[in-house]
Amino acid sequence: MSQANILEVNAERLWATLERSAQIGRFRDTGLQRLTLSHEDKEMRDLYVSWIREAGCSIEIDPVGNIFARRPGRDNSLAPVAIGSHLDTQICGGRYDGVLGVMCGLEAIRILNDRGIETVRPIELIMWTNEEGARFSPPLMGSLAFAGKLPLEKVCGTKDDAGRLFGDELERIGYAGKAPLGNRPLDCYLELHIEQAPDLDREGCDIGIVVGGYKTLALRVDVIGETSHSGGTPMAQRRNALVGAGYLIGAVNDIGLAYAAEQGRTTTPRIECFPNLPGIIPEKVQLIVDFRHPDPAGFDRMHADIKAAIAKVEAKAQVKIAVTEGWSWGTSLFAPECIDLLKETARELGLPYREMLSQAGHDAYAVADLTPTAMIFTPCRGGVSHNTNEDIDLARTLAGANLLLNAAVRRANR
Amino acid sequence: MSQANILEVNAERLWATLERSAQIGRFRDTGLQRLTLSHEDKEMRDLYVSWIREAGCSIEIDPVGNIFARRPGRDNSLAPVAIGSHLDTQICGGRYDGVLGVMCGLEAIRILNDRGIETVRPIELIMWTNEEGARFSPPLMGSLAFAGKLPLEKVCGTKDDAGRLFGDELERIGYAGKAPLGNRPLDCYLELHIEQAPDLDREGCDIGIVVGGYKTLALRVDVIGETSHSGGTPMAQRRNALVGAGYLIGAVNDIGLAYAAEQGRTTTPRIECFPNLPGIIPEKVQLIVDFRHPDPAGFDRMHADIKAAIAKVEAKAQVKIAVTEGWSWGTSLFAPECIDLLKETARELGLPYREMLSQAGHDAYAVADLTPTAMIFTPCRGGVSHNTNEDIDLARTLAGANLLLNAAVRRANR
Repeated sequence: MSQANILEVNAERLWATLERSAQIGRFRDTGLQRLTLSHEDKEMRDLYVSWIREAGCSIEIDPVGNIFARRPGRDNSLAPVAIGSHLDTQICGGRYDGVLGVMCGLEAIRILNDRGIETVRPIELIMWTNEEGARFSPPLMGSLAFAGKLPLEKVCGTKDDAGRLFGDELERIGYAGKAPLGNRPLDCYLELHIEQAPDLDREGCDIGIVVGGYKTLALRVDVIGETSHSGGTPMAQRRNALVGAGYLIGAVNDIGLAYAAEQGRTTTPRIECFPNLPGIIPEKVQLIVDFRHPDPAGFDRMHADIKAAIAKVEAKAQVKIAVTEGWSWGTSLFAPECIDLLKETARELGLPYREMLSQAGHDAYAVADLTPTAMIFTPCRGGVSHNTNEDIDLARTLAGANLLLNAAVRRANR
Repeated sequence: MSQANILEVNAERLWATLERSAQIGRFRDTGLQRLTLSHEDKEMRDLYVSWIREAGCSIEIDPVGNIFARRPGRDNSLAPVAIGSHLDTQICGGRYDGVLGVMCGLEAIRILNDRGIETVRPIELIMWTNEEGARFSPPLMGSLAFAGKLPLEKVCGTKDDAGRLFGDELERIGYAGKAPLGNRPLDCYLELHIEQAPDLDREGCDIGIVVGGYKTLALRVDVIGETSHSGGTPMAQRRNALVGAGYLIGAVNDIGLAYAAEQGRTTTPRIECFPNLPGIIPEKVQLIVDFRHPDPAGFDRMHADIKAAIAKVEAKAQVKIAVTEGWSWGTSLFAPECIDLLKETARELGLPYREMLSQAGHDAYAVADLTPTAMIFTPCRGGVSHNTNEDIDLARTLAGANLLLNAAVRRANR
């Protein structure tokens, strides 16, 4: 790549695009609440589709609402280089989680148009449905369905907390598409995302090339006790499901603290309790427990510790605890050829980077089983994410945006 | 009281009445789900009103739906002897909690009619609205409003979890009455209730004369943390509200266990968590924590321990915990003159009894501030209550029913 071939995104236009997105589902001033298949999701999709049409792309939408925007190449019989991310957010999320990756992809297409550059392969910008899993569980729903890991019927039959079906809601907002689900040839997949951890920001490094992920497992945990009167039932006779859950939440956090020095993490993000009323001892609590570790052996030790904690809690609280696996992802995700592409391109652009593991799950994890995949991380302030104070520094983000652009073009000219 | 004056309830009719009630809101075969102001509550009230009309009583209903059924006496200028309880249940409750007291009162009136007995004072049977607090919080709502401890506007403005107003729902079922709220002269109030604790059943004693209650306090507890990503946020940086809640639930239960030998009790019956979604650390958890102890000094020690536990949890989980008092009741509730009335009547009827403290809250607690009050407990199998397996033995219940009947008549002839 000669100096003359180096492309740069239009920083002002990229920022304006991010700011426009930040108006759709604005929440607590600085954040976003743009839940999957909500009115705000529809508004964002409609605007996004108008943008990609203006950029001359063709559009296909699959039956779970994933949007594929294609900029033609010189040889359209070749599989496209895919880039993308998601536009849905957490219930009190930030402006950049997911959004940045999609908008950097859009900016890449726009700059190629500005410069009249034709690539050999097409470039395909993918917007995945429901990465967050905030309204419909599990997370990565669109990319998992695309990868054949979630059947269409299961996705469409998923209910939100109000009992509304994913399939009905997708129809309602007009994004139940006709393109086949999956089986779409892709030359590779590159995803840019904010790091969502504090390492890049703290170290003053602007690019993370993601070489793998923390091994992660989410468990669905049912704690089963028995209702009784909160006054008259002697302590020794109680089988209080919420007490079992409380002990378990504490024990799981203690395990996370014990593994913190080796970067282990544990979280109980969700609890549901029945009957959940004054005067009556709960009979059933449902929890999600997730844990992750950069090293699979460390993960296994954590898993054993969590199983032991569950057995202890069962005995102490006189409850039964049933565990089913919710979702998981591993450590060997990304293709050396794509990691190398990113490293070589970064070197040629003169951009410092560090290798790192992803601590969060991403759509790229689902796609990685289908096609060579890699990810670029950019810094977010203090690592704050899934929080309305999520923030980025545009100047520090451009390095990653330019890396994505140039790496995609390089690969598309292969 | 001479032998000839001793009255006995009609056991078969009492049982039939209880069985009929057990069909309205039947839940999980043996239990009841008859939530306040629900369709089932209306159906039960309509049937109950038809029964008390058939029994020749006049009816008044106050603006919170409390129903006052009066059997006239010889001198209707005298304040009536009141008896009563409630017909609402927990969300998965039993057939007898509350119901037994109302139906024993109805049976008392029916047997007086059968025998053509006129009392000097009127006898008033009261059905209190929303004793359980299962749908609308707090518990004892009707009796507290009657006692002037909950303003009418506050009661009518209370919302259930679906956001429906108490006032609207009361109108909807047709039980927003015109009788003045409170300021109703009562000569005394006697309430019969199942014990909801295992002592009478275990000891083979059929009557508990309640001389006081466990000192009880329910706290509303807000645990405040901050959202962040469940993957990328290092353990040490987390301010996880649900972790704070988990530690607190465990610590509160440990305190209950530590006081179990002296009959202390702690319960966390309710939890609400936000955002409560996978992938995001919770920022806010709301709990109800209640604790009780037979001895006020023991109660104070427990209270101090709970406060200390809250401070420890705040530090350990890096959260803020705000505590407001929900509801409370004390230990000196019942009038010696009414307790003596019950004891003397029991002796004259030849019925063994034991004195005891109530571990649960009851409408009688609210009424006790207005008029001399006492309670009769009858056994329930194994002390099981607030559970669909709640059960009674009719033969062991008749002693209490006859005590209520004879004590009320004795007092009404004063």
